[in-house]
Parts: sequence; structure tokens; C-alpha cells
Amino acid sequence: MSAAREVGVGIVGYGTMGKAHSYAYAAAPQIRSLSWRPRIRAISGRNRAAVERAARDFGAERFTTDWRELVASPDVEIVDICTPPGTHAEIIEAAAESGKAILCEKPLAASWDDGCRAAAAVRRALVMNAIGFNYRRLPALSLMKRLVDAGRIGEVRLWRGSWLSDEFVDPEIRFDWRFERSVGASTIADLGAHLLDLAGWLVGKIDAVSAQSRTFTPERRDADGATQKVDVDEASSALLRFRSGALGVFEVAKTCVRRPCDFTVEVNGERGTLRFDYARLNELWYGDGGEEPELYGMRRIRAEHPLHPETQGWWAIGQGVGYGASFVNQAADLLEQWPDGTWSPDFASGLEVQAGCEAIERAAAQGRWVGLDEIHDGGQASST
Amino acid sequence: MSAAREVGVGIVGYGTMGKAHSYAYAAAPQIRSLSWRPRIRAISGRNRAAVERAARDFGAERFTTDWRELVASPDVEIVDICTPPGTHAEIIEAAAESGKAILCEKPLAASWDDGCRAAAAVRRALVMNAIGFNYRRLPALSLMKRLVDAGRIGEVRLWRGSWLSDEFVDPEIRFDWRFERSVGASTIADLGAHLLDLAGWLVGKIDAVSAQSRTFTPERRDADGATQKVDVDEASSALLRFRSGALGVFEVAKTCVRRPCDFTVEVNGERGTLRFDYARLNELWYGDGGEEPELYGMRRIRAEHPLHPETQGWWAIGQGVGYGASFVNQAADLLEQWPDGTWSPDFASGLEVQAGCEAIERAAAQGRWVGLDEIHDGGQASST
Amino acid sequence: MSAAREVGVGIVGYGTMGKAHSYAYAAAPQIRSLSWRPRIRAISGRNRAAVERAARDFGAERFTTDWRELVASPDVEIVDICTPPGTHAEIIEAAAESGKAILCEKPLAASWDDGCRAAAAVRRALVMNAIGFNYRRLPALSLMKRLVDAGRIGEVRLWRGSWLSDEFVDPEIRFDWRFERSVGASTIADLGAHLLDLAGWLVGKIDAVSAQSRTFTPERRDADGATQKVDVDEASSALLRFRSGALGVFEVAKTCVRRPCDFTVEVNGERGTLRFDYARLNELWYGDGGEEPELYGMRRIRAEHPLHPETQGWWAIGQGVGYGASFVNQAADLLEQWPDGTWSPDFASGLEVQAGCEAIERAAAQGRWVGLDEIHDGGQASST
Amino acid sequence: MSAAREVGVGIVGYGTMGKAHSYAYAAAPQIRSLSWRPRIRAISGRNRAAVERAARDFGAERFTTDWRELVASPDVEIVDICTPPGTHAEIIEAAAESGKAILCEKPLAASWDDGCRAAAAVRRALVMNAIGFNYRRLPALSLMKRLVDAGRIGEVRLWRGSWLSDEFVDPEIRFDWRFERSVGASTIADLGAHLLDLAGWLVGKIDAVSAQSRTFTPERRDADGATQKVDVDEASSALLRFRSGALGVFEVAKTCVRRPCDFTVEVNGERGTLRFDYARLNELWYGDGGEEPELYGMRRIRAEHPLHPETQGWWAIGQGVGYGASFVNQAADLLEQWPDGTWSPDFASGLEVQAGCEAIERAAAQGRWVGLDEIHDGGQASST
Repeated sequence: MSAAREVGVGIVGYGTMGKAHSYAYAAAPQIRSLSWRPRIRAISGRNRAAVERAARDFGAERFTTDWRELVASPDVEIVDICTPPGTHAEIIEAAAESGKAILCEKPLAASWDDGCRAAAAVRRALVMNAIGFNYRRLPALSLMKRLVDAGRIGEVRLWRGSWLSDEFVDPEIRFDWRFERSVGASTIADLGAHLLDLAGWLVGKIDAVSAQSRTFTPERRDADGATQKVDVDEASSALLRFRSGALGVFEVAKTCVRRPCDFTVEVNGERGTLRFDYARLNELWYGDGGEEPELYGMRRIRAEHPLHPETQGWWAIGQGVGYGASFVNQAADLLEQWPDGTWSPDFASGLEVQAGCEAIERAAAQGRWVGLDEIHDGGQASST
Repeated sequence: MSAAREVGVGIVGYGTMGKAHSYAYAAAPQIRSLSWRPRIRAISGRNRAAVERAARDFGAERFTTDWRELVASPDVEIVDICTPPGTHAEIIEAAAESGKAILCEKPLAASWDDGCRAAAAVRRALVMNAIGFNYRRLPALSLMKRLVDAGRIGEVRLWRGSWLSDEFVDPEIRFDWRFERSVGASTIADLGAHLLDLAGWLVGKIDAVSAQSRTFTPERRDADGATQKVDVDEASSALLRFRSGALGVFEVAKTCVRRPCDFTVEVNGERGTLRFDYARLNELWYGDGGEEPELYGMRRIRAEHPLHPETQGWWAIGQGVGYGASFVNQAADLLEQWPDGTWSPDFASGLEVQAGCEAIERAAAQGRWVGLDEIHDGGQASST
Repeated sequence: MSAAREVGVGIVGYGTMGKAHSYAYAAAPQIRSLSWRPRIRAISGRNRAAVERAARDFGAERFTTDWRELVASPDVEIVDICTPPGTHAEIIEAAAESGKAILCEKPLAASWDDGCRAAAAVRRALVMNAIGFNYRRLPALSLMKRLVDAGRIGEVRLWRGSWLSDEFVDPEIRFDWRFERSVGASTIADLGAHLLDLAGWLVGKIDAVSAQSRTFTPERRDADGATQKVDVDEASSALLRFRSGALGVFEVAKTCVRRPCDFTVEVNGERGTLRFDYARLNELWYGDGGEEPELYGMRRIRAEHPLHPETQGWWAIGQGVGYGASFVNQAADLLEQWPDGTWSPDFASGLEVQAGCEAIERAAAQGRWVGLDEIHDGGQASST
Repeated sequence: MSAAREVGVGIVGYGTMGKAHSYAYAAAPQIRSLSWRPRIRAISGRNRAAVERAARDFGAERFTTDWRELVASPDVEIVDICTPPGTHAEIIEAAAESGKAILCEKPLAASWDDGCRAAAAVRRALVMNAIGFNYRRLPALSLMKRLVDAGRIGEVRLWRGSWLSDEFVDPEIRFDWRFERSVGASTIADLGAHLLDLAGWLVGKIDAVSAQSRTFTPERRDADGATQKVDVDEASSALLRFRSGALGVFEVAKTCVRRPCDFTVEVNGERGTLRFDYARLNELWYGDGGEEPELYGMRRIRAEHPLHPETQGWWAIGQGVGYGASFVNQAADLLEQWPDGTWSPDFASGLEVQAGCEAIERAAAQGRWVGLDEIHDGGQASST
């Protein structure tokens, strides 16, 4: 039998995202028939024992503690960046200079300046690039996009998205890189990047924002028992004004008890409503204003039908997919475009989201509405 | 058998609220054993045929097209105001001057100035007064308050409330008083008054707000076919900063297709989460951060247990009450305080909410954060 | 103003049902404009102090401890029977002989023989008669019936209904009449009567049944501390074969912890599915097999639209009604037929349900399929 | 780095189950760190082109159209049977004789006799054997089992399980092996095997059953246009009596419109209730009768906590797993026992379930209660 051709992948980082991506490369060919099969040539990480174990578990051919070595390897065609946000720009610049295709986890960067550097690097190098907004690949959210684009709900008037988590509820959680904005990025960027991406995808560009942020536990002890200042926001909310005139409400928080990862998105258009609740990720709620009034209400679409986007190759309807499917679909979608198709969303999308994050951070810090133009024009230093 | 004593009520307005209140007076003694039985002495309204029919259906002893006559009637001890918001202040002033107890539907007024007049009138006259924040009387929301007050979730950090309706979706709906801010009040006040009342009740006073508003259908035809300008907001959202340091997110909209009256409130405290969804009004969701992790999740409390507040006299647990129960409980709670107890919430609460509405309207109109102090200090004219 | 005419009602029993019916008579004219206004002339009950208090709270004109006196009163035109099932037949016979219209709570009787006596009495006397299957008057279930009748789901193939309660979970609950089959009726009849009524209404006549029953706490102490044998089933389930060829599954239980009153009904037809969950009583779920596959799923119809049955006069869509609405609608529907229209469901429906209960009881006792013909033919003594 | 050792697997069948198992072998090492890594040595199937393609997509080393060749291959240590039920026994016998470990998809067989043959074969050969009751490996169902075993709900009194699908709704679906009982097995066995397995696992052995079955579309056209008789049940329901005295209700159907794969299981014990709804597979509902009444209700446990069973290596809580996780966990659990641990559930469990299926089929065919002893004693021929 004629084997599929192979494409060499190098994964930078072996944490949660490194694992999710590695799983995706293993599962994608099983789920979707692919012409190009990913092969994990190398994985890198700072902790030698941990990266060695990850390499074994993930089936990587080799490991290294030096990401520059991985990036430079001739057999690595795609550099897949799964490290903390604050490290992205440097790795992207190196990979782009080496002519590698790049898949980078979100957010693109921990700061607007770094985001600009990263986006500029791939523009210069003309390499394929993709940003890991994996939730676009969930069938239900992909179906939401399709229904909006098909005009099912008419022009979008209102958007709301929120992401409630309890990750930082416990004040005893030790200080680590997640609490350092320059490494882990703000919560606005960490969780909010997904929301802003979906907002832009579904509604269009944001014109201006107002925002507020708080950190309820301003100091934490680190692993050595030393007290460290936390400079990331634990909860932030924002009003969004879209260029189209639509209004948006945005909220992210890591201090919501018994809310593990509850993210919801809703759009209300002239003629319909669409709503997604990640806790029931195989469902999409659709209210169609044109239907007979006797059936007034919303449908719970089981977003697993073979006709739905991003369901190809998956289980029979009703069986349900999980979080992993978003990564499998992402990997499969990218591999289907290999080696000279188009990757989407790309770093330009990542940068647009980064601009939104920067605007929200600045609006919260300065207590005023901030226009996105101001960010793009670069007329003002980053928030403080 | 010794009959309960009777208290004379006069209802001003026979519309939706007049009907709901009338139903409540009829049902309250059935549900809860009361020492004072309400008797509807009179009902008033401008349309003679309609008010006559209402009087018959509601079992009022008489009707009148002149609310002043009703207010002046010696046998009317409680004046129950169910007319559009813009008419409240004048009726309140007359009723207070006549020494009547007053129950007034929310919002207290259509403007901050009128709200101040109304509140001043009852302060001067020293009459019993209550504002119709009926949702406080729903068992589930009353239980939410009890659990917050009992410290079950610790200090509240985040509050969010939204009210999504489709009342104004259809651009063919004719212009009437609901689209005139001076009569029907803004959507911020109409729907948002309930949200702000719950926010204040559950979290405390608001310090400052930022907001945005939009009217998607700026003109509508009236019953005569004439084009009229709509000056009420159809959708508004706001960020709330509480004095306690808690953050809030507020949204009201009447342009959400297939969202009939979907209002939700959630509070996240240091140790727990409470959530209410009006579409399932007999349920309260409670996430207790102190529970064993193996049971991680939220409970769906069936807020109908005899131990719960506002369930006295109602059906067996599981049977469920509806919207009407909030009015029945309101009537019963007020009658239990008759004739010389304490009514709550009163106009002072109504005015505090009105200040919040005014602040949100002003923040939306002026594109800046507005402190509540500014409203209370009166240093600035109303919005625009 | 021309007052509505009045019809005299006498309520036998002041317990849960007496209260619910009394509430309904008070609220019905408020909700729905009625030509005939009910007036509670008398209420009866064995406990003098309790019935006196009930009379006062419910606004009855008088009370009596002798139901025969109430039944004989010339000003009582409708006898409304709210006593335990085992007492119904005797009261019905007396009321029918007195020429009164009769509304009797379900189940019609505690035994098949008594049910036959009751039905015969009204047939002989030609009096108006109605059985209290109040759930038919819930908007959502009434809409389910309408959609089935309109052919929306095609021929019904499968029916399932269950009623899960925790009423008898606690073994310390004292023995009272509810545990005596001859007075309180079996659980099959108490809870199951509603299910069988809905089954017959939605699907048609039952042909045969197989069943099983259990009593987990076979003895309980009574108020005097004496041990008493419980002869009612605490949990029963049955297979139903309908004459149409449809299959049914039936379950009732009073031993389900934290299931207060969870009753669900579902029908699957050739072309659609309809599902009702009483815990969310303002919703009806509808799956339409003819819809475009891209919207595959079920709708959550908000069964409160003015176009829906049994919503007349109620609150705006989204506000929600409760259990009480079923009684208000029942009272209003009956009063709209007064004095010479048709009442439905009547005792004939009550008797058909009673036959189903008897068949299930017999099938469980004898471990075999029992045909409904066998019950109707009377060829066999009651179960044991 | 020291590579994990490899175990050779041969997959018989490349259909839905072949794909799911293949996916599981690829993903298991990614999710859970394993000492033994599965390697798919061969895959077999009758259609050469299809099996060739499957081999490529699944990453199998080779393919064959002769399952006997695969079974005989020295490098195949585990034979994984994913063919229709009627073919299992023969393959199992061959594999057992070859001394292979065997994982067989459920149901064990299409008939009781074949099930006995299969079970006898592995007993004789003393080979490791497992039956594919994959749903036991879902975190939520595994947690249900743990909570029952820990005595959280006390002795189980009631069990109910149903599986509603629309697989056979459309009468135009062509006749194929699924409609032939001797190949595809009854719906009682196809869907019901999972339910009976969970019933036995959670509650214990079944004593006797009563049942009913129907086929609404008794004939279908095959691919050649010829009319074929359908001899499988499309909908069946049964009453279960457990040895412990618990009662059960069982239902399976493939004729439920817009019910794709909706399976639910609930157990009511003396002190608690547990409920699972597969449409929300990451949740387990738990009602604890011992809790303070003020919190009356059920919890929605997010069955994804690291403390929960079958969550090892999976995503952060709240992210959610899908159907595939049941197979990944199954593969990982079996591989963790390789080469000389214990596999569970094994063919003995499969045979116990088969006895239940046979009893239900016989009870439905003969219209009487059938004891499980009767099946095990073999005193009576198979149904009809």
C-alpha cells in the first residue's frame, strides 16, 4: 500500500499544550484520511528528565533542551510553539528566519510590541503561519460561524462572550510564571484571546473598548516561600464597540468558584440568535426569528451531523467529541493545506486579537475608552 | 368564624402590572394565612371601557377614569401605582399628600429628578412606601440573598446580571409610550432597575460605571402612520465598580431574537458561586468551594423547600411556582406588615437604583466612567 | 358596571387539593375574563378548627364538618371533591343524586369497583362531571396534545412516562392514610393516574400491561407508635401495549431521593418527538424529523406564547407559570362551559384510567400480562 | 531515551469500531504514560480496497482480506475483534486456539448459543479476554460506580436505563446486515448490552424479566432493490427484577426521531440518587439524601476532576472529553495489565449480559416473565 507522505514537526514545549498538540498529530490521521502524515521529529523543553519522558510518551524521535537546536534541524518543517506567551516572539523570529512553517499557541505574545515583532517576522520570511485559536475548529462554533455567514440571523447587533474559571481562586496556589504578566500574559490575553478571536471572526473588527480589571490576591508565595507580587489581572470585563455598530460584552475571570472552564458566546442578530456553552460543547443553540410563532424558542442543534463543519471523520451523531477534537481538527486542517495552501487563522489574526487585548488592558489601566486605532497607530506606550 | 380585617386598596392602572397586582391581592390570602385581607376598592385608568372591564374581571368595587379621585377616596388606604414610569412622581406626590401608603411599580421614575421628587414626597409625608422589585420575592432569588448573607460564598468579588428580551426586535412594532423615554423610561431603567436592585441587594453600593447604548431602530411609525423618533435605548451594557471593590457586568437588551425574558444573575464570592436563571425560576445553582473535590460541581437547588424563604403556603416541592408568585409574595409580605410595620424595599431603595440608572445613562451618553457620587451630588445635569 | 353572574361552589376537603382548588377559584377571574364567577359557598372537613381556618383563608362563606350538609345545600351548584381517593365514590353518589355538577380530584377511586360506582352515579343522574387531571391544562402538555393531533409527529409509536418522587423515602415518616391502599389508593393510581391519562389522551387506549411493584418499607409506625402494615406500592413499573400497536413504558416511585416531583412524558412518532419535563414546566421539547438536517436537534419551545393553548390571560412569554396555573386553567375551562356546556375530561376518562391502574396492579400481583378487556369484562376479582 | 516495549495488535474489521479502536491505540500513549505501546501489525476486512485504505489511515503495518491469516500471525499478540456480532464466536474460537489475547466488541454474540461457545473457548484456552463495554471507562459512569460501591447512595432500589436512537427511523434505509438478527444481533443486544452491563455492574444480577418488542418497518429493500424481511426489533422495553430485590426499567429503540444516541442511566438508592445522561457525558448528577435540606437538589458533578476515575492524563477539568475517551481509556487500562494482569470486564461479563438479552428476547416473544435461571439452565430453546 502507498504510504502517506510525511511532514516533520518539532514541538517546542511539553506542557499541557505540547501534549494536546502531540495527541492531535497522533490522532488526526486516524480520524481524517490525510495525504500528509505528521511525524514528530523532535520536542524541546528546559527540564531534561521531563522532556525525555514527554518524548517517549508522545512518540517523538528525539528530544532536546535547546529549542534553537530544534528550530535549526533540517528535518523539522513545522515548528509548533507550545511555550508560555512571553517566549513566543523570540522563537517565532528564529523559526521564521530558518524558513520554517510555524504554528504558535495563543496568545501570539504577552505584549503588543512582542506581537508586532512576531507578525513582522513571518511577513518578512514569507513562511506559513498559524495561530492556535483551536476553538474555531469545534464543530459547534464552526457551525455558528457558518450560520452567521449564511445570513441566518441577519446582521449581528449584539455579541457577548465570557470565560469563567477557578484557576486562581485558591490564594495558596504558588506564584509561578502564570502570575507574571511578561511571561504568562494577562488573563485578558490568556483566556480573552479566544473570546476576542471569536468576536472578530463572527462580528468583525472592534472599534473601541472600555474595561476594568482586578487582582484579588495581589501577592503569592513562590516555591521558595518568597512573597511575589502578582501583576496579572484575575478578573477583567470590557465593553466592546464594533465598527459595524454592534455592541459587545466581554468578561474573563479566574476567580469563579466551581466554574472550571465555562466559556459561552452568544450573538444576537436582526433575525436570529446563536448561543454556545462550552460545558456542552457538542451543542449549538439557535433561535430563528422567522419561524412560526407556535414553535417559539431555540433549538439545541446537535452539532455533530455529517453536514456540519469540522465533523469529518468523527463519531456518529450523538456520541460527542471533546476538547481534543479541536486540536485534531486544527492539525488536520493545517495538514490538508500542506505544503503550499493557506493556513488560517494566521499571525495577522493573532495580532488583531493582540491589539484588542492591549486596548482592553490600557482601557482598564487608564479608566477611559480606548480606540483600536490608537493601538495600531502606536501613538501611546503600553498600559501602566 | 372571625373574618380577617380588610384593608382598602386602590390600583392606578389596569395594564399588565395592574392585572398582576390585582391577581396578587386575590391569591395572597389563599396562599398565605393573613390577618389583613386586601379589598380592591377602586381601579383607575384613562380608557373608560377598558377600566370598566378590568374592574369587573379583577373584582374591584368601582372604577374611575380619574386617578386623583381614587387617591382622594377615604376607603383607599393603599395606593398601588401600576402606570408607566413617567407618571409615577405626580401620583406619588398626590398620594403622599393624602397620607396614603404607596406601593409603586418599578422603576421609581423615568428620570433622576422625578425619582428625587417621589422619594422626597414620602419622606415628607411619612407614609409607608414600597417599590415593586418583585423578583426579590422569588424563592430562588430570596434564597440567593440568604446564602450570601450567611457567608456561604464569602465576600462577593464578581457580579453579573443580564436581561435579554425580544420585545423590540420587530421594526414594525408601532411607536407607543414604551419608545418615549420621558414616559416609558430607558431600557436601562425598565429592565435594568431589577438588575441594579439585585446588585445592590446582593453586593452593596455601586461606586462608578462605564456604559454603552444603542437604538437599532431609531424611528417607528405610530398608530396614525406618522414617523416618530425613538429616544429609548434598545440595548445597553455597563461595567459596574462596587464600593467593596467587587466588579460587575450589566446588560439589558430588547433586541434578542427568541429571548423572551431571559434574565440571569450570578455572584462569585471567595468561597462559592450562586447563579440564577429566570427561565428556570424554581432553581438556584450553588457551587460550594469548600466541598470535597470529588463532588466538584454546582448543585441545582430546588428552591421550593419549606425551609426556603418565600415558599410559605406554596405548593409541595417540585411542583413549581411562576411569575405570579413574586407578586403574591410581595402582597403578602406587605400585608403582614400592615398597618404599622416596615415595608421593604422602599422608595429609598428605588432611588438608589434610579441613581444607578442615571449614572449608566450618563456614562453611555458621555463615553466616560461616571461615579455615583456625581449623581447624588447633583453637580451635573442629566445625560446629553 | 354589569357584574359577572355567580355560580356556587362547595369544596369537600381543605387539604392540599382543597387549597389548590380554592386558589384557582380566586385567581381564575383575574387571569381570564369570565362570564360566571365562582363563589365558594361552603367548605367541609372533619377537623372543625382546621376547616374553620381554611374557610377564613380561602374566603368561603361558611364551613361544615358534614360533607352531606354541603352536598345538600341549595346554593351549592358544583361539588368539588378534594378528599382522599377512597372516599370519592360515596360523595359522588350523594352529589349526583342531589343533581349537582361534580368536579372530583384524581384518581376517581381507590379501587376499580368504586370507580365503576362513581361513573355509574353520574351517568344515571346526568350531571356535569369532571375529573381533576389538571396537568392537561398546563400550556406545555396542552401544546403537546395539539401538535400530536395536528399530525406533527405522525403516528405515535412509543410513549414513556415516569413520575419520580421522594415522598416515602424516609422510613420514619408516620403511617397515615396515604399508606392504606383502600383510602389513599396505590401509587400506581395516585401518581400513575396522571401518566395513564396523558397516555390515553396522547396515544389512545391501552390493550394490555405487564408490571411489577415493590414496597421497600413494609411497616411504619403510626401517630400512636403502633406498627402498621403498609399495603401500597412504593415503586411500580409497567410495560404498556396500546391498541394502535404503540409501545409504552410507565414508572412511578415515591422512593427516589432528591427527586421531589419529577415527571416526564415523551412520545416518539413516525416523524417527530415531543418531550415534557415537569421540572421545567414552561417548556416543550420538539424534534421535527422533517427539518433540514443541518439543524438536527430538538427545539425547546417556550410554551407560553399567546398562540399556545391554555395561555390565555397569563403573563408575557418568558415569565413563566407554575403548578397553580393548571388549576386556574381547569377552573376557567369548566366555568366557560357553565352551565350547560361539556366538561372534559369527565368521569368516563377517569374510569378508563382506573381500568389501567387496576390492570397494572393485577399484572404486578399476578406476574403476567393483563388485558384491559379483562378489567372491563369484570371476569376476575381485583388483584391479590 | 528508553523506548516503551511494544505489543502487537491485529484488528479484525475496519468499520466504525475498527476505526475507534485504532484511534485508541494511537492516542492512548499520548494521554497516559504507558510501559507497553500498542503496534497495529495487521488489519483485516473483506473489501480489499477499503481495508487497504483503512490500513494506511490507521497506520497498520499490513492488511489482509483473510482474518484467519491475521489471527495466525506470530506478531499479533492481541486480536481485537470489531466485526458484526454474528461473526464473533468463530473468530474468538480461532484466536483462542491460537493462544491470542482477545478484545471483542460487544455484544459478545448474536445469540445465546454463540455467546456460550465464545466464553467456553477462552476458558479452555486460558487466554486474556475482554469485552468492549467501553462506557464503563467514561469518567462519569466510572464515578457513578465508585460512588455506589462506596455506599454513598445506600442499597440500590431502582435502576432505569434507556437508549433512544433514530438509526432506523427512515423506512428508506436499505436492508443490510444490521436488520438481520443472526448477523447484527437484536436491538436488545446491540444497544441493550451496554445497558444490561451497567445494570449488572451497578446493581447486581438480574433475576427475571418481562418484555415487549416491535418492528415498525417489517420489510426493507436491499441494495439490489429486493424486499427483505427485517427480523430485528426496532424498539424493545423490559421490566427487570434484580436478585437483590431492586426493580429496573429498560428501554432501547432505534425509531426515536431526533434522538441520535441518547442514553441515560439512573439509580435510586436508600440514601441517594445518581443519574447520567450521555448527551452531557462529562457530567454526573448526584442527589445526596443526607445533606442539609436547605440545599435540597442534585449536584451536577463535573466528572473530570483529577480525583475521578478514568481521568488520568486527560485535559483540565471543564475542557471535556468525548466518546473517543472511552476507547482510549479502555486501551490504556488493558495495556496497563499487559502481559499478565487481569482484564475486566471479560467474556464472563459478556456472557452474563448475553443471558439478559436472551431472557428479554424470550420474554418479549412469549409474553411472560422469564427467569435468568431458565437461560443459564438451558432448559429451553432460544426465542420463538
